[in-house]
Amino acid sequence: MEQQHERTGGLSYHGSSPDLGSPPISSCERGESSHQEEDPIMRRNEIYLPVPGEDKNLDGDFREKDGNNESMPMKTLYARDGSLLHAQLGPYFSDGQRRVDYVLTYSIHKPSGVRRQSSKFDDATFFQRLRRSMSTRSSRAPLQPKEDPEIVATDQQANFHEDDKRFKREEFEQNLLDMGLELEKDERTKISGLGFLKIHAPWTVLCREAEMMKLKMPTTKLYEVKQGTNIVEKIRLFIHKVTDPLHPKVGPTRLEDVKSLSLPFSREKQHLFDLSDRDLFFDSKTRSSIVYEVLKRIRWTRPNYSMGITSLLANGVYTSAFPLHDGDVEGDGGKPNDRQLLFEEWASYSVFYKYQPIGLIRKYFGEKVGLYFAWLGVYTQMLIPAAIVGVIVFLYGCATVDDNIPSMEICDPRNNITMCPLCDQVCSYWKLVTACGTARASHLFDNPATVFFSVFMALWAVLFMEHWKRRQMRLNYIWDLTDYGMEEEDHNRAEYELRVAEKTMRQDQGAPKDEKPKLTCTDRMPAYLTTVLMMAFMIAVTFAIAFGVILYRISIKAALHISSYPVARSNIRATVKTTAAIINLIVIIILDEIYAYIARWLTLKEVPKTDKSFEERLIFKTFILKFVNAFTPIVYLAFFRGRLVGRPGKYLYVVGTYRMEECAHAGCLMELCIQLCITMLGKQLIQNNLFEIGIPKLKKLLRKRKSELTSKQEEELNKTLKRYEKDHFLGPFVGINPEYMEMIIQFGMVTLFVASFPLAPLFALLNNIIEIRLDAKKFVTELRRPIAAKAKDIGIWYNLLRGLSKVAVIVNAFVIAFTSDFVPRLVYQYMYSPDGSLHGFVNHSLSYFEVKDFELGTAPIQPHHLGYTVDVCRYKDYREPPGSITPYALSKEFWAILAVRLAFVIIFQNLVMLMSDFVDWLIPDIPKDISLQIHREKLLMLDHFMKEEQGKKLPVRDNYNHDNYTSPSLDNGSPSQPRSRPKFQARAGW
Amino acid sequence: MEQQHERTGGLSYHGSSPDLGSPPISSCERGESSHQEEDPIMRRNEIYLPVPGEDKNLDGDFREKDGNNESMPMKTLYARDGSLLHAQLGPYFSDGQRRVDYVLTYSIHKPSGVRRQSSKFDDATFFQRLRRSMSTRSSRAPLQPKEDPEIVATDQQANFHEDDKRFKREEFEQNLLDMGLELEKDERTKISGLGFLKIHAPWTVLCREAEMMKLKMPTTKLYEVKQGTNIVEKIRLFIHKVTDPLHPKVGPTRLEDVKSLSLPFSREKQHLFDLSDRDLFFDSKTRSSIVYEVLKRIRWTRPNYSMGITSLLANGVYTSAFPLHDGDVEGDGGKPNDRQLLFEEWASYSVFYKYQPIGLIRKYFGEKVGLYFAWLGVYTQMLIPAAIVGVIVFLYGCATVDDNIPSMEICDPRNNITMCPLCDQVCSYWKLVTACGTARASHLFDNPATVFFSVFMALWAVLFMEHWKRRQMRLNYIWDLTDYGMEEEDHNRAEYELRVAEKTMRQDQGAPKDEKPKLTCTDRMPAYLTTVLMMAFMIAVTFAIAFGVILYRISIKAALHISSYPVARSNIRATVKTTAAIINLIVIIILDEIYAYIARWLTLKEVPKTDKSFEERLIFKTFILKFVNAFTPIVYLAFFRGRLVGRPGKYLYVVGTYRMEECAHAGCLMELCIQLCITMLGKQLIQNNLFEIGIPKLKKLLRKRKSELTSKQEEELNKTLKRYEKDHFLGPFVGINPEYMEMIIQFGMVTLFVASFPLAPLFALLNNIIEIRLDAKKFVTELRRPIAAKAKDIGIWYNLLRGLSKVAVIVNAFVIAFTSDFVPRLVYQYMYSPDGSLHGFVNHSLSYFEVKDFELGTAPIQPHHLGYTVDVCRYKDYREPPGSITPYALSKEFWAILAVRLAFVIIFQNLVMLMSDFVDWLIPDIPKDISLQIHREKLLMLDHFMKEEQGKKLPVRDNYNHDNYTSPSLDNGSPSQPRSRPKFQARAGW
Repeated sequence: MEQQHERTGGLSYHGSSPDLGSPPISSCERGESSHQEEDPIMRRNEIYLPVPGEDKNLDGDFREKDGNNESMPMKTLYARDGSLLHAQLGPYFSDGQRRVDYVLTYSIHKPSGVRRQSSKFDDATFFQRLRRSMSTRSSRAPLQPKEDPEIVATDQQANFHEDDKRFKREEFEQNLLDMGLELEKDERTKISGLGFLKIHAPWTVLCREAEMMKLKMPTTKLYEVKQGTNIVEKIRLFIHKVTDPLHPKVGPTRLEDVKSLSLPFSREKQHLFDLSDRDLFFDSKTRSSIVYEVLKRIRWTRPNYSMGITSLLANGVYTSAFPLHDGDVEGDGGKPNDRQLLFEEWASYSVFYKYQPIGLIRKYFGEKVGLYFAWLGVYTQMLIPAAIVGVIVFLYGCATVDDNIPSMEICDPRNNITMCPLCDQVCSYWKLVTACGTARASHLFDNPATVFFSVFMALWAVLFMEHWKRRQMRLNYIWDLTDYGMEEEDHNRAEYELRVAEKTMRQDQGAPKDEKPKLTCTDRMPAYLTTVLMMAFMIAVTFAIAFGVILYRISIKAALHISSYPVARSNIRATVKTTAAIINLIVIIILDEIYAYIARWLTLKEVPKTDKSFEERLIFKTFILKFVNAFTPIVYLAFFRGRLVGRPGKYLYVVGTYRMEECAHAGCLMELCIQLCITMLGKQLIQNNLFEIGIPKLKKLLRKRKSELTSKQEEELNKTLKRYEKDHFLGPFVGINPEYMEMIIQFGMVTLFVASFPLAPLFALLNNIIEIRLDAKKFVTELRRPIAAKAKDIGIWYNLLRGLSKVAVIVNAFVIAFTSDFVPRLVYQYMYSPDGSLHGFVNHSLSYFEVKDFELGTAPIQPHHLGYTVDVCRYKDYREPPGSITPYALSKEFWAILAVRLAFVIIFQNLVMLMSDFVDWLIPDIPKDISLQIHREKLLMLDHFMKEEQGKKLPVRDNYNHDNYTSPSLDNGSPSQPRSRPKFQARAGW
Repeated sequence: MEQQHERTGGLSYHGSSPDLGSPPISSCERGESSHQEEDPIMRRNEIYLPVPGEDKNLDGDFREKDGNNESMPMKTLYARDGSLLHAQLGPYFSDGQRRVDYVLTYSIHKPSGVRRQSSKFDDATFFQRLRRSMSTRSSRAPLQPKEDPEIVATDQQANFHEDDKRFKREEFEQNLLDMGLELEKDERTKISGLGFLKIHAPWTVLCREAEMMKLKMPTTKLYEVKQGTNIVEKIRLFIHKVTDPLHPKVGPTRLEDVKSLSLPFSREKQHLFDLSDRDLFFDSKTRSSIVYEVLKRIRWTRPNYSMGITSLLANGVYTSAFPLHDGDVEGDGGKPNDRQLLFEEWASYSVFYKYQPIGLIRKYFGEKVGLYFAWLGVYTQMLIPAAIVGVIVFLYGCATVDDNIPSMEICDPRNNITMCPLCDQVCSYWKLVTACGTARASHLFDNPATVFFSVFMALWAVLFMEHWKRRQMRLNYIWDLTDYGMEEEDHNRAEYELRVAEKTMRQDQGAPKDEKPKLTCTDRMPAYLTTVLMMAFMIAVTFAIAFGVILYRISIKAALHISSYPVARSNIRATVKTTAAIINLIVIIILDEIYAYIARWLTLKEVPKTDKSFEERLIFKTFILKFVNAFTPIVYLAFFRGRLVGRPGKYLYVVGTYRMEECAHAGCLMELCIQLCITMLGKQLIQNNLFEIGIPKLKKLLRKRKSELTSKQEEELNKTLKRYEKDHFLGPFVGINPEYMEMIIQFGMVTLFVASFPLAPLFALLNNIIEIRLDAKKFVTELRRPIAAKAKDIGIWYNLLRGLSKVAVIVNAFVIAFTSDFVPRLVYQYMYSPDGSLHGFVNHSLSYFEVKDFELGTAPIQPHHLGYTVDVCRYKDYREPPGSITPYALSKEFWAILAVRLAFVIIFQNLVMLMSDFVDWLIPDIPKDISLQIHREKLLMLDHFMKEEQGKKLPVRDNYNHDNYTSPSLDNGSPSQPRSRPKFQARAGW
């Protein structure tokens, strides 16, 4: 028996392994008793197919044997010459013919042999644990850890649980068979302790489900895609030719001029579709999503309780569910499969400059993943102009740094300006000329071009949205999603059902029966309270840490001022800024990971009803936490630093005697810039390299060490592993929301504070070029294939993007008005300057302070540090001079400049919003050619139906005495030539 | 022959009248030659129905005669006892059976008899002219005026044109017949010179088109509409019971608990629908829209040219096209038809307090009109709370007027403040106490409650939008529009096609043939230029007129100041304000009408491609012009009046020596309020009463006088008029866009300046209560029935509403910050007041002016008018006193207050926008119960299909040896019981 198994390669054994104890459920006994004697292949047919006729005659995949079993020996022959081995290693049933469309795995415990085969059992639990530890990240497996105690419980209980699970499995599988699916089990895999249930959907099931899901399939009717006038067409072709090396080498190289009309698949209109090769009509993605659709519908049912596939997975009846990859990523010389194509032309750093093969991605992973990569592509593409303009703005700053009057004045030693000390006692007076370097550096990021760049980026954000909307519409058209309506309602989550069941049990006596049980707000109140409190706590933690970093900065600065090393003193500012920024960065990265876990935990506590709701709540929480985390230090630097300082003689103190930090002379923009730069670069480098490349590698290494195989052995094993075994070793697919989240935070960095850091788009661009290929590699090689999810748009992320770009307008307005010196300079130039230039601006922006007004104990210890006695020092503020009626009160200039700052905010915000709305209105959401195409498709469809109508009418006219207002039965029943011809063609095809 | 015609009532005559000259086109000769000898009814069948079998056997409406003609006498019998007369006067063919679903009219000239029957001819042209003059307002008839010269041209040419038209008509009608429609002509109506082509769609055509249009029809499958939990349900029922008298008495009085599942109609699934009464299955609205759909598709075609129904109408081949009303508005005792129900329960002022019967409106007029009235209803309903809060705010102002410290200070004669003169020379100094009345009045509209009310109204606007979105969604669900996708593409407009044809003719030689001719931007450039120039000119005109009114105000005020009548002088302000406001109002109303015509003319010049594009362009232009027109004087009053004044000694002059107007002491809010009040009240009263009630009455009167019939005769005539003749006398339906426009401008009034006029919502509410019934009356009694247009939303109007409510936030922020004294008072109270109260505010807000600083010739002629010598006068501004370093320069207080004003704008705008977005996000767009229902419907549908699937499978299982992957022919062809039963039922039904 073992021998035969080896030769034919994992043939199906029904139920548990032979050394299993007596089967407890009678409904399975028939299968159990018969399986020992018969040929495995024949047995499968008889047990798993209650309607054998359908299997043999109706299933298109089996047309070779067509009613007789004579072809069977030929197949085994075929098996012996080695090709079958290939087929078996591929995603096929053991007959090498029927595709495995879906795989369910389950753990098999061998209770009777636990003691004897303890090593084997350990092996099994190892894999189980491994899988479990990996799947805690998955959204589907959050209840599994609950079972951990059960594993270490007594054998007795384990036996009972295992039997219960097996029983549920068997019933569930019976339901699958009733739906027409075909199953094959493999419990003798390389991975002991794990059984695989392979599911194949025969042609009839595919057709039926495709019709019910209203899947749009391409018909044989082609039509020419005309792209506008001749000139436009020529330009398009030219552009396509020029950019040819940028296009990935997948599929047809030249532009497609014809598109086949797509129609919702319907068996009654089968003649419209090209069914010449049924194996290719539904691609592997479609097949697996059809099977998944069936799986979702089928339930294991008891009078008071029923479990869908998600509940079964959550309860450990099955351990995982996934469709199979098309094959290995390394090609074997033949025609490469889609996965290989993707690996070569997409998931590789060497093709970083190329467009992405979005069509193929969609074909392989489904619309949702396709849309993510399309969006990422559009975003990256749109970053190119932004990065170029950003670099130009930066270079403009560099070029004009020597012409900048304020920094020239600061650097001019003739302007002998004595500044007030920056801290109490230990610091002394200082000369403004020492701030020369900072002032010059600040100009790089604080010049009129920055204002232009802010406006530019606000419009860029709108253009990006519009461009994406159009791209999305175009993809919708190409992918035949234009008619795809609202998303299908989700099925309830397993956790939700469990909670509802618990609730029903509790109030079984009292409650009226007519209401469908559900979780009310009251049930969820504790969870909501926890959420609110935890979120508030987490945000408080973020603020506290940011405040801690501020204190660190203040104290270190004071300490360094005391230190006697002159080198340390000269580098004080740079050192403090950089270390603080790095501390901030590390805190951000650590908290990011913690917050992700907390958000998930909180969402699980809330027990959302559907997966969609779960996703939305999770995204909402994660977004708030991560956003606050990433932007708290930046917002502090931009808007609060240097504003809550007080004035000489009346400083503001925090935590006892710490004076709040002041900005360097030329505004806080410089420090904001450093913080942004370090956060962006560091976050992306560390998160990408460490988390996305490093940790998976580490995990692999660990796994390898545990399995204690040499690399040679491993390679050998790898070759003989079957497709579903290989896929089982891959990480589970956890959705693309983390990827989106990362990009949204980056988008925030790029747009929110772009006024202070024009190089942000460049950094983002460089990161994204890597990010695309990194994600691609992950999806193609490291993760199990996801279920193809349909999606028409990127959903909630679009709203977040919109929200961010709206907030960005206001934030940038405030940054320019308040953080930069743009407005004061402007006001000086036009209201106070004697000659209309900026000469004298520095002097005008500094107020006077008489040193005798220092509070007791705050005056510097070394007042003669500069070599002369200081009577009056200067500080950056607009206040009345000491001799006026109200000394040190805010001056008229302060109010005038404040008014202009505020006016600037209003004008900037409303102007940019108006421009954005105008651009939004100007660019149609649907590209013109696409709307024309859709229109033409509709006309073609109408035309087609009209023709069919007339085709129907003609034969009817001959026998018009018939009662024809029940026409359907009539016109289909009549042997009319046009209807029956396609049938003939379809048959002649093979 | 004539006798028989009279008895059977307008039987159909094919082609032109008997005294027509020789028919010029041979294709018509067959019809012409045969029609003289035969019975008219029989003839119709033979000529108009090329497939007689279809007519007799396939048309469900003719089941009585079922293959033999014996039933015919019975029908004429039925005719003789008078009921036929009723049927003939109703919307039926002359047989009293077949419904007239659509009517086309055309003019019949009798060229051979022109000289003899000149009086008759005059009659005809009179009606034609009347119709034409009326239809210039219609969007379909803009090309008709071009023909006017042709009417007065020679007979010869007229003959040729008429023949050409008749020929086109005949070919077009032949095409209609080919599509299966049934026609009947009536050229001997009471209205001589006019022929009626009545169109009836038989059952087969209805079914075919319904299937192609994917019309959703109710199936027999009912399901229970469950409305949440028991408590919710009880509350709902209770509310329904309480509000019962408010519900119109149409249809079922109690709430509907069941809804029938709707499915796109399909002849193959006929058994699902309730076809027991085929006459009622498609209601009259659906029937006419089906016919219109067919009409739109059919074209009169020549090799290089083709004309659709719109082109034929535009070219005068047909003069009008309309569906028929269900009957007269006055009931005759029997079961009232829908029109009567609408007239009694909706289009009557006596039911103003009731809900509108939206379902019935939709059933009768279609979704587009239904949505308009639903929207108007929601708007009116939402105005109730706004009006109540507005009145409360106003009453609060009234109640606190005596506690208001600033006005108390102004009215206190002890504060002996001398103010600077309001105009040069003729005006003198005045005492502030004389402004007491204005100050007290101003408080009514300028108090802290106003700020609250602005915020309230901003949120109200968002709530209104959200409420409407939900209501719209609910209506979409009830009306089965949830799956209704994008609007169907419009057919090209006739004018566009004409222009394209002209263009093609011009470049016939040069241009390549492969491109579809179309109008490019270059073709439209002159029109675009005209549009831009005209729009700019019109806006300039509006500004000029507004400026004119300002000049009027200034000069009259100066003149009145000179006048020696003390009464005139005391009433100066009130008189000037009121007359200026009335002038503004009159100008607005006149320009409104002019602008509507200009916008239409400009849009016609642009030759838009489709009706949709035409509508959008027209709305865009009209909206801009009307909006600018309505709001220019208000914006001036709110933001510019009193701001561009200059200061004493340095006033700002316009047009030579006119000093710009100042505001009364307590801000301009009062004047803004008067202007708003007069504009709103006057505009609505005049436009409603004069234009919507008066002018139609006048038109009717004129028409009556022309027709020279006494009212008795008219009544008599009215009784014998057939349905289509009556409808012909009604005004054509011109769309609901003017109604929307009126409401949008009103919405602007209500939201934009609500800070200055809290009674606006009340005025709007009162107006709308009348408006609803007025519009209803117009639609039910005065206009032809519109083609039922499908619509899922209110389209562009929603965007305009959104835009307006966004602008409203900013405008209100500015009104509160700058027009009202709210911010200065606040700043005084918290920054300058010695005791934290408003005492001393008036003194603080007035600057000092030394009279010796008056410019030459501007000092008052009578400086001693007040009885004492004035050295220093006061004026309302924040400027330095005369003795300071910079006399009369803007003071620190000015800048401080300006900064606070601007800060208020920023905070108000962003806070309200944030709150709006939050409310928007909080309230789901789709009501929960509706989304649940939609979900349940989908499940039911799926369930239903699954059952059908299993029903199919069972018989298949018996003969599974069949080749069943071409299942459609198999499962329809097999005599399976479940499929054939409905057919039987349908037959048994009658």
